[in-house]
Amino acid sequence: MTASAPWPSSPPPGSRSHDRGGGERVSTTGYGGVQPSLFTDLYELTMAAAYFANGRTGRATFELSVRSLPANRNFLVACGLEDLLQALASWRFSDDDIAYLRTLDLFDEPFLDALRAIEFTGDVRAVPEGEVVFAGEPIVEITAPVIEGQLLETLALNVIGTRTMQASKAARVSIAAAGRSFVDFSARRDHGVDAALGAARAALVAGASATSLVEAGRRWSAPLSGTMAHAYVMAFDDERDAFRSFARTFPSSAVLLIDTWDTRQGARNAVEVAHELRAEGVTIQGVRLDSGDLATLARDVRSILDEGGCPEVRILASGDLDEHRIAELTAGGAPIDGYGVGTRMGTSEDAPSLGVVYKLVEDEAGPKLKLSEGKATLPGRKQIRRHDDHDLLTLVDEEDNGRPLIVDAVRHGTRVRDPEPIPVLQRRCAEAIATLPPRLTSLDPATPPYEVRRSARLQSLVDRLQRAYAHG
Amino acid sequence: MTASAPWPSSPPPGSRSHDRGGGERVSTTGYGGVQPSLFTDLYELTMAAAYFANGRTGRATFELSVRSLPANRNFLVACGLEDLLQALASWRFSDDDIAYLRTLDLFDEPFLDALRAIEFTGDVRAVPEGEVVFAGEPIVEITAPVIEGQLLETLALNVIGTRTMQASKAARVSIAAAGRSFVDFSARRDHGVDAALGAARAALVAGASATSLVEAGRRWSAPLSGTMAHAYVMAFDDERDAFRSFARTFPSSAVLLIDTWDTRQGARNAVEVAHELRAEGVTIQGVRLDSGDLATLARDVRSILDEGGCPEVRILASGDLDEHRIAELTAGGAPIDGYGVGTRMGTSEDAPSLGVVYKLVEDEAGPKLKLSEGKATLPGRKQIRRHDDHDLLTLVDEEDNGRPLIVDAVRHGTRVRDPEPIPVLQRRCAEAIATLPPRLTSLDPATPPYEVRRSARLQSLVDRLQRAYAHG
Repeated sequence: MTASAPWPSSPPPGSRSHDRGGGERVSTTGYGGVQPSLFTDLYELTMAAAYFANGRTGRATFELSVRSLPANRNFLVACGLEDLLQALASWRFSDDDIAYLRTLDLFDEPFLDALRAIEFTGDVRAVPEGEVVFAGEPIVEITAPVIEGQLLETLALNVIGTRTMQASKAARVSIAAAGRSFVDFSARRDHGVDAALGAARAALVAGASATSLVEAGRRWSAPLSGTMAHAYVMAFDDERDAFRSFARTFPSSAVLLIDTWDTRQGARNAVEVAHELRAEGVTIQGVRLDSGDLATLARDVRSILDEGGCPEVRILASGDLDEHRIAELTAGGAPIDGYGVGTRMGTSEDAPSLGVVYKLVEDEAGPKLKLSEGKATLPGRKQIRRHDDHDLLTLVDEEDNGRPLIVDAVRHGTRVRDPEPIPVLQRRCAEAIATLPPRLTSLDPATPPYEVRRSARLQSLVDRLQRAYAHG
Repeated sequence: MTASAPWPSSPPPGSRSHDRGGGERVSTTGYGGVQPSLFTDLYELTMAAAYFANGRTGRATFELSVRSLPANRNFLVACGLEDLLQALASWRFSDDDIAYLRTLDLFDEPFLDALRAIEFTGDVRAVPEGEVVFAGEPIVEITAPVIEGQLLETLALNVIGTRTMQASKAARVSIAAAGRSFVDFSARRDHGVDAALGAARAALVAGASATSLVEAGRRWSAPLSGTMAHAYVMAFDDERDAFRSFARTFPSSAVLLIDTWDTRQGARNAVEVAHELRAEGVTIQGVRLDSGDLATLARDVRSILDEGGCPEVRILASGDLDEHRIAELTAGGAPIDGYGVGTRMGTSEDAPSLGVVYKLVEDEAGPKLKLSEGKATLPGRKQIRRHDDHDLLTLVDEEDNGRPLIVDAVRHGTRVRDPEPIPVLQRRCAEAIATLPPRLTSLDPATPPYEVRRSARLQSLVDRLQRAYAHG
């Protein structure tokens, strides 16, 4: 059931399209409603204070990337840039923020004055949302006075890491659904309000046809989808009364939940009610299965519906679904028209974090390198060049005939890239995935994994810096 | 390093206590800064509309519980009630909300008028935050006009489920730390802003001595903790210059990160700088290890510090820690004074969701039962009675000599339970865990698991309703 923006994709069972025009609505309340300035680890502030006290105020470049892919990911879908850019635009330390920081008895007044004056004056280069990226590739690069760049670490990691994790998981669900629609049902178990808003948006970017989360529908003019809960059915003594009352209230869009007591009897009750209400002009759009052996039940329910003269009633399945269960159902030919996917997608259950890191790669003294065991980083500002079967990581100013992925988003504190409506991101994501080598779109680990090469110039810079540290 | 409220617990390395008085500050901006009304699945609204259209406006009771414990949890720590109560207090449909809902072309004007007039008028009973609970036990019970109760489902599940998941994971970290301090470092990889705020609070409830997240420190007058990042060290050509500049800026609280290039050399550099700055009155509080074999490195670093005449410098360890790694380090006698715990705790990595459900258990027609395969629910309003070695689940009005866990939080829409400062929750949690049978506080699955019994009256109600459905 219901409501939406004008974007394409066949409506899922339980949806109907509604054009309210206008494209994507952009939130103006700051990231998740929290002013971003104090959404930071304390050490960003103490480091900023130490840079400040020591006159280290030159520009530096920080690079955000994912150190290695989780075991069950062959690629990632970049996401979260819009949230980050909005946060940057409203990034200020208010008088209240400063007053709180003063109580910590850690910072002197000259530094607090500097914080009060701060706004983002730097550059942001980034991979556009919806694009496919791999381990070690810069997703976002921030070049700014080192204090600004440092203070943004926690926020940038959180926003880009979470959204990219969510979109990357949703892309796997999209692949498994193999053209059938899937809907984001994750709001109730995502890790908080903005986790749920982000999960909905990430799922849409990755190909979901709708979300159940009303606030997400409002924010992004996105199609909404919903059915009914067991509680509704249980509020009536007779399941048929629940179905009748709901269908009469939503005479063309009702999706009936049929598993509260007995799924097959529920299907028979749905047929009975469908016939009974036809005279009133009421049509049942679909039924939902939410428990039990979905493959067997879907077949039985399809038979009951077809034999009962209701071939137009669609079947939506939900209940602890993820890409593997959906792939099984799809492979087994279960007559399911759409999937409601919740917890496992929104929380990225099998990989509930990405190893996102935010590293200094260059400052006024030149490119920088870190050598911590197992945590080395590549120096310098970079570009990613996509070729048919590999990516080439180059320094920013190298020539190469591969498609460049990193674009300018902010220059000297001014945004130079407009917000993109979700359908644009959805198309970009679908195209990026479609052009990957086919082994990458398996749900199993790709062998070999996608190759990310380093240009000769980048590698010789690494070698030179390693020698310098070893002998310095 | 730094700042805090007056609560007890020994300060972790990298912290210093600062009394700013005042107890817990309560946010007034609504849950996660998002108005809660449209943070709801569409189906809550369509069901509400159907209840309304069909004159079903009587009171009903919904129960929020966790269906089964994740494999690696012997108990849960209830958390999130304060967030939920704050959301209830600000729960209104604004004119903008109504205007958006009208565009969906799903709801008639009488229903939209009813929404516009809605506020929470019901009762909430709940297990206090910090208390230990088990599968199948009601954590929150909402009794209200059915439309109100239904509309709150998504929000209640999200808030209570997420916070309880986070606190339950943090409690395991606390057990593993076995009296050494641990600090929440999770903000950067939690699933969004309010996930991170919630993770910080949940960790504090479960025994963390501080958080790195500044906004969390402000919101709850909580101690903050922080060190420095690799980027800071890398901004200087010589690691010792980084240490000197930082220690001079924070002359009594600096914790130096020593693993950027070589941990043992970093320790020697820390010793050198400590001696050099002593004349200036600067003391180094600690060093942090963030990579490599922490057990071996901690021993080597302790020796370097001790032999270098710096026995007062403490060692903080971080880097992909969870309860299992901490338990190993503790068991191996690693000379680590405190742990910084991030991603795996804040995201509850091994169980990134709880099977929270929100079920109709009673309405004006009496107690209700659901029979979906594997998803049965227990009817009626209840109480939990804690005994030494088991809990007894009873109907709400039964007598029993076990300690009752569920208390009144809201009556007729009015809050009857004050916000509790975090130290109160921390003590409640510590006591609840301390009085569990010892097998429950193992990190391994308890055998047998804790027993939750049903009273004879509750069981006979279940039997009666099952027979009624079977024959009805």
